[in-house]
Amino acid sequence: MTKSNLEKDFLAYLQEIDAYHELISLAHWDLRTKIPKKGVESRSKAIGILSAKVHEMQTSDKMKQFIDELKNKTDDEVIQKAVEECELDYERNHKIPQAEYKEYVTLQGQAEAAWQEAREKADFQLFQPYLEKLVEFNKRFANYWGYEGHIYDALLDQYEPGMTVKTLDEVFPALRESLTQLREKVNNSKANVDSSIVLGYFPKEQQRNFAIDVLKQMNYDFEAGRLDDTIHPFEITLNLHDVRITTRYDENDFRMAVFGIIHEGGHALYEQNIHPQFAHTPLATGTSMGIHESQSLFWENLIGRSDGFWKANYEKFKSFAPDFFKELDVDEFYRAINEVKPTLIRIEADELTYALHIMVRYELEKALINGEIEVKDLPVLWNEKMVDYLGIEPANDGEGVLQDIHWSSGDFGYFPSYALGYMYAAQFYNTLNQQMDVDSIVQSGDLSPITNWLKENIHQYGKMKKPLELLQDITNESLNPTHLVNYLTEKYSRIYNF
Amino acid sequence: MTKSNLEKDFLAYLQEIDAYHELISLAHWDLRTKIPKKGVESRSKAIGILSAKVHEMQTSDKMKQFIDELKNKTDDEVIQKAVEECELDYERNHKIPQAEYKEYVTLQGQAEAAWQEAREKADFQLFQPYLEKLVEFNKRFANYWGYEGHIYDALLDQYEPGMTVKTLDEVFPALRESLTQLREKVNNSKANVDSSIVLGYFPKEQQRNFAIDVLKQMNYDFEAGRLDDTIHPFEITLNLHDVRITTRYDENDFRMAVFGIIHEGGHALYEQNIHPQFAHTPLATGTSMGIHESQSLFWENLIGRSDGFWKANYEKFKSFAPDFFKELDVDEFYRAINEVKPTLIRIEADELTYALHIMVRYELEKALINGEIEVKDLPVLWNEKMVDYLGIEPANDGEGVLQDIHWSSGDFGYFPSYALGYMYAAQFYNTLNQQMDVDSIVQSGDLSPITNWLKENIHQYGKMKKPLELLQDITNESLNPTHLVNYLTEKYSRIYNF
Repeated sequence: MTKSNLEKDFLAYLQEIDAYHELISLAHWDLRTKIPKKGVESRSKAIGILSAKVHEMQTSDKMKQFIDELKNKTDDEVIQKAVEECELDYERNHKIPQAEYKEYVTLQGQAEAAWQEAREKADFQLFQPYLEKLVEFNKRFANYWGYEGHIYDALLDQYEPGMTVKTLDEVFPALRESLTQLREKVNNSKANVDSSIVLGYFPKEQQRNFAIDVLKQMNYDFEAGRLDDTIHPFEITLNLHDVRITTRYDENDFRMAVFGIIHEGGHALYEQNIHPQFAHTPLATGTSMGIHESQSLFWENLIGRSDGFWKANYEKFKSFAPDFFKELDVDEFYRAINEVKPTLIRIEADELTYALHIMVRYELEKALINGEIEVKDLPVLWNEKMVDYLGIEPANDGEGVLQDIHWSSGDFGYFPSYALGYMYAAQFYNTLNQQMDVDSIVQSGDLSPITNWLKENIHQYGKMKKPLELLQDITNESLNPTHLVNYLTEKYSRIYNF
Repeated sequence: MTKSNLEKDFLAYLQEIDAYHELISLAHWDLRTKIPKKGVESRSKAIGILSAKVHEMQTSDKMKQFIDELKNKTDDEVIQKAVEECELDYERNHKIPQAEYKEYVTLQGQAEAAWQEAREKADFQLFQPYLEKLVEFNKRFANYWGYEGHIYDALLDQYEPGMTVKTLDEVFPALRESLTQLREKVNNSKANVDSSIVLGYFPKEQQRNFAIDVLKQMNYDFEAGRLDDTIHPFEITLNLHDVRITTRYDENDFRMAVFGIIHEGGHALYEQNIHPQFAHTPLATGTSMGIHESQSLFWENLIGRSDGFWKANYEKFKSFAPDFFKELDVDEFYRAINEVKPTLIRIEADELTYALHIMVRYELEKALINGEIEVKDLPVLWNEKMVDYLGIEPANDGEGVLQDIHWSSGDFGYFPSYALGYMYAAQFYNTLNQQMDVDSIVQSGDLSPITNWLKENIHQYGKMKKPLELLQDITNESLNPTHLVNYLTEKYSRIYNF
């Protein structure tokens, strides 16, 4: 299909925007991995200046003209979808009065600094006035953007297009009920499951070498990516052929780096496997936060923490690991790395209780945005919900309501993606199991049939399909928490003998 | 002094340009140190797109307006100098017709590819047609830009503002005469000076650790820079507080990395020590290629290859070095690392013969641009000059006329900077010696009086002073090759007993 000049101009315009994104992403990667500390101030300014240029291009009259002249007027499906993405961005930006947005950006900076201090001092009041303003801004933004059902839908939609409070409220309570029941069963189990037996000095380089082996098994392409050290691990896409991951090592707990790397590797596979025809357009990324998280969690937990995976890899693991593992057989090891132990801190949570952390946040966010509760009530409500859902209570706000950075940057509507990712992952896993014997493949040590399936069904599309469309196409159903509950029940009933 | 709104706008405009430079420089650093190979294509495109944006800003009507409204109309000396730099760039760009420049950029890409193949095959004819065009373009550019004396002055001025053929032709012949005489004396010497005694397996990490120690002695600030591996070593400035250096290791010849790192460290000190008031303006870099090279050569040779430096550092060096150094005393070591041995390849040349390589190139370039010789005659002329100046003859054009990349990117007028750097370095060294006992300081192991002197007299000014102005201010004289000749004579007469 030959492209019109207008279409070519549009694609060239998108490629310009993408060039900015590529260099800005590189700068973010560098900020978090390599930069010497005195270089940070100038680098941050430079990022700010170039980000403003991108913003100008995304909200320019020229962009508006492309949208008006191409939307529903092109025969090229890729261009049509790209235009739709551009329009979403354009509208989202244009509906907020510029002065208000500027004020908001300034507030974000201040709020993050205030949050950091508040968390260190475990003093919510230091953060409260900023959080109040952030909530007010987000309410207003939601109203500018508009919504059909619940005001919170407008915020959700930024991260998980098509997801609504209605759907979440259908799904989450049942999931919560099942998870808390499972948690109870685990609690009451007399099975001997103790993660401390896998802890002990494990040199960083050896952890790294094992993890690299696993990444290669997953078919992560090291000619199109790299692995570096950082403080808060992340995956970042510079372009579809340069998808980098990072990790942090605890030399007394290999789980942080090994499972962290598998997790980021799952994100990275998604991006490396997007079809190159979408390069340099807004379609060349994962379709939503939830689907992205489904990929990282799929690899980290459903594969990486599975029995079959360790049957295939335990001998190799021991060749990298310290001697004390020689005394552990693979079954003991497998149970140890799957211990369930509710924690106060979300990012340290086990597979079973993780989603409960998300529900605490989702319910509070929704009520804040809806005006049902006030910011000042958060610490008490937080602690109550932690007791209700996880059975433990924070000793202070630092390990309670202040633990996550997200609210300090005004990210409301983001948290549900994490729980959605779990559910999506289990749904994909269920379908995959109908099509192939996943456990046998995992035990064979050649994971490529799995990578290929994910590529073919999910990765290659980038943003061409919306999350719920993708889910429907693959699994023939919509969001369904049963698969996650079934997966967890089967796994933990075996480990905990119930 | 309060700034006018116009001045503030101008500085903000410069800061925008600088933000592009900062991220583009980061991308270049990454391309040469970290990037996975499949990421290169997209990254190069992104760099091209953002470089075009910078070019637009530097040659925009807005820039022209700033120049017209501020030049000689501001009381702020920094702004005045910045305007002058912007004008130079603006004029240089505007005097070349756009279509012609575009054609030239395309040619550069093709010529570099042709040069690479030609060098590999040692076949000058593959490169000749490209070089002919590059020379023609440069002649035309020189005419567009204008000159007072020799046409080559217009090209020189890009790299060494104020330098002329007249000056070089006064200085180079005398220098050449002295250097060839010195080379003869070394040749006839019966002294036992043999670099092979310092060669042998020396693990990379140990080389690196020693070099880092030296960088710290030089007061290179690791909180404002870093050291990485690369293939062709370089220094690169991302901002004044992020000045990175790179190196390459030969595990059988520590000299490559150790002296290479000291060399790049000398470049880096210059940039780290520029006064922060010039940040985000075109003044925040070294004032010329020659002065920059004077800093790297000063540290690499006049300090790093000196007797005193090794007296202070040899015990430490041996603690990092392999055992065979235990059998070498510092005097033997010092003589070995200063062996004079003419090489065909410029970048492998010793301190004494290096400038002779430059003169070969300078004379050929000048005659090419002046129309006195033709491109097709280069191989023969090159070999003749090598025999005349260095006493050795290339076996083929690959190790002869094709060895350097510079001409393939159209960089005519650049080579003299290298020889100028040597002369400047010796002149600075002479003045410094009048003000302090350099050798005692070097032997003391605390190099900070030297770093501070360079900072105070050279580094801090950035581009506020032109190279010859700086030279005059510091040494009370203009370009004078005597100091280099004296320094080399004294050094090598001791080493070679003549």
